[in-house]
Amino acid sequence: MTMPKSAQPFPRSEYLRRLAAVKSEMEKREIDVLLVTTPANIAYLSGYTSKSGYVPQGLVVSSKDEEPTFITRRMDAPAAIHQMFIDRSHVIGYPEALIANPDRDGYDAIIDFIVDQGFGRKSIGLERKFLPALTAEKFKSRAADAKLVDCTNAVTWIRGLKSDLEIGIMREAAAISDAGMLKAKEVIRPGTREADASAEIIATLARGANGKPGTDLASFFLCATPRTSTCHIRWTEDTFQQGSQINLEFSGVRHGYTSPLMRTMSIGKPADHLRRLHEGEVAGLEAALAAAKTGSTCSDVATAFNTTLRKHGFEKESRCGYAVGIDWTEPTASLKEGDMTVLRPNMTFHLMLGNWINEDLGYVISETFRVTNAGGEPFTKLPRELFEL
Amino acid sequence: MTMPKSAQPFPRSEYLRRLAAVKSEMEKREIDVLLVTTPANIAYLSGYTSKSGYVPQGLVVSSKDEEPTFITRRMDAPAAIHQMFIDRSHVIGYPEALIANPDRDGYDAIIDFIVDQGFGRKSIGLERKFLPALTAEKFKSRAADAKLVDCTNAVTWIRGLKSDLEIGIMREAAAISDAGMLKAKEVIRPGTREADASAEIIATLARGANGKPGTDLASFFLCATPRTSTCHIRWTEDTFQQGSQINLEFSGVRHGYTSPLMRTMSIGKPADHLRRLHEGEVAGLEAALAAAKTGSTCSDVATAFNTTLRKHGFEKESRCGYAVGIDWTEPTASLKEGDMTVLRPNMTFHLMLGNWINEDLGYVISETFRVTNAGGEPFTKLPRELFEL
Repeated sequence: MTMPKSAQPFPRSEYLRRLAAVKSEMEKREIDVLLVTTPANIAYLSGYTSKSGYVPQGLVVSSKDEEPTFITRRMDAPAAIHQMFIDRSHVIGYPEALIANPDRDGYDAIIDFIVDQGFGRKSIGLERKFLPALTAEKFKSRAADAKLVDCTNAVTWIRGLKSDLEIGIMREAAAISDAGMLKAKEVIRPGTREADASAEIIATLARGANGKPGTDLASFFLCATPRTSTCHIRWTEDTFQQGSQINLEFSGVRHGYTSPLMRTMSIGKPADHLRRLHEGEVAGLEAALAAAKTGSTCSDVATAFNTTLRKHGFEKESRCGYAVGIDWTEPTASLKEGDMTVLRPNMTFHLMLGNWINEDLGYVISETFRVTNAGGEPFTKLPRELFEL
Repeated sequence: MTMPKSAQPFPRSEYLRRLAAVKSEMEKREIDVLLVTTPANIAYLSGYTSKSGYVPQGLVVSSKDEEPTFITRRMDAPAAIHQMFIDRSHVIGYPEALIANPDRDGYDAIIDFIVDQGFGRKSIGLERKFLPALTAEKFKSRAADAKLVDCTNAVTWIRGLKSDLEIGIMREAAAISDAGMLKAKEVIRPGTREADASAEIIATLARGANGKPGTDLASFFLCATPRTSTCHIRWTEDTFQQGSQINLEFSGVRHGYTSPLMRTMSIGKPADHLRRLHEGEVAGLEAALAAAKTGSTCSDVATAFNTTLRKHGFEKESRCGYAVGIDWTEPTASLKEGDMTVLRPNMTFHLMLGNWINEDLGYVISETFRVTNAGGEPFTKLPRELFEL
């Protein structure tokens, strides 16, 4: 028996549409072949979400082939055959001898393939910013006659503009995020360990919502008193107390797509200064969503937020959001003053209003939204509350 | 109020011992200052496990300072003050203006610090293999008068040899892995969705065992029929059936330390060929553990496994294990023929006998062990069974 194809989250036509956009960009940049190595970009162009990216792998896109070719460690080839929309002949497994080998690794197999395909003297696009330094040098020495062109984020920018099908999947992820936050409201109680509450919330994110299970776990952060000024601690061995404040950030995942969500909770009545900060941030959030309409810029959205927050007597140093989709952050557009990216319908952002003001005061709220002509349309259905437990 | 220190998983003396080993290695390599950027190595030398490594950060170790200095994004500084054993004056937060800025990033702040400390014309060690290509170039241009020395894995090799304190923490992680596997045995049933079973297992990994909660989640893979030839798929939307085979790989986590574990399960009687493969692998596992004693080499262990498996009529292409500890794999020693690393007491390995033979047949079993004079001592207390559910 050979490996069957999995149920595909998108039809073939959707992947071909994405590839057509990439090939058009390659033509514009005069690239003959593009090597895609960022896992999120590989997922975007093929449907592959298996976690093999800790060893070298690459999706090779060229205008001469309708389907890209994936070069991966041999033990990961069956997962690629299963998940990717492409024909199995386009999945090439490199031998195990290239693992933990100081002289040759999977990138050598990738370079060999690219050269064998006749691109040794052509223009090769690389996602250079994310390639390890020693790998970039390997391309220079082993494909010495090729023209190496930095294409970092070329695919990522295309990925920024979602199709309606992708928006549908992100809404499914958002429903899971909402279910997780409601579970948090239910299980966070004085005397409960942070780890046990996290276990319940994370289990909810895996079980999913509306009959659609989570397909992966994304980042998860539970930063509670006395750590509300921190943002990237998973959880601790502590127990919640009466008066504890809890800052939560996590996301449901559907086929790689995320829809992050943040909310702040308080066991008992929140302190006045926290309540005031919450009111300022919610006003800012609403101003930002109103500003996030087709034709505005990222900068406009940030200005709307910052101006409103300032009226409430607060400042936020960090950007107020970023493009979001597969594997969470897209390292392209930022919701910050000076980012002149023009908003188009179905761009999606995590309006991330975490505000860690000093070692004593941190507050979080966020929503993931899509751009529409009428402004930002959030995916969450949760109220914008400072939840009192 | 300023941020309090968290309960530390290790005493200060343990961190100073680790730093002394690193400084001694730096002296041997004639390095004046070492920049540690690998998250697992930062955790090892400081206790920091917050997940800020998706933006530039670095721990600067120099022989002139007892404590290292951590340079991180400003919003992550409170978590570093909280978790690291070092004094708060050794945590430096760089401003938000360096995030999503095409011209300057956190590495510029790190380079500025190193140069300001007087190392601009000295010898600077970098974990070059894992630095992005553009960052490596930045060091070359911005610290042009320094001698840049590749120190990839210098700290990682030191990390390979665990203290008894670390072994104790890895045993706690192992007990959590065991609890997860027992939960899997309990919840995997015909008609249950893979996602729901995964939710229960993962929740167990977060809750922990013996009153010690999990402190993080590590990789988790549930590859069930018809995907038993795959190894890195999280889980799917499918439902288990009578006759399904389930290959599991996951780990409990304590303070960053993992103790990975794999087992294969079958709903109903396993097929004969699977049973035969299981018997060969278990015999190989036992031979490998017997061979894994002080003074042997990694190659000896692999030979013991491969010879035994071959006697049972099977081959395994991939290496049969690797060094393991913080954040799972240590990219140093491999249990493979030809790896002449000499085993020393308290080195720890994941004896990883996943064997994905063809698209129809994959089987997994693994144990994490420490080297002793009498052979490999596994941390798991589970039987070496092909679990029939």
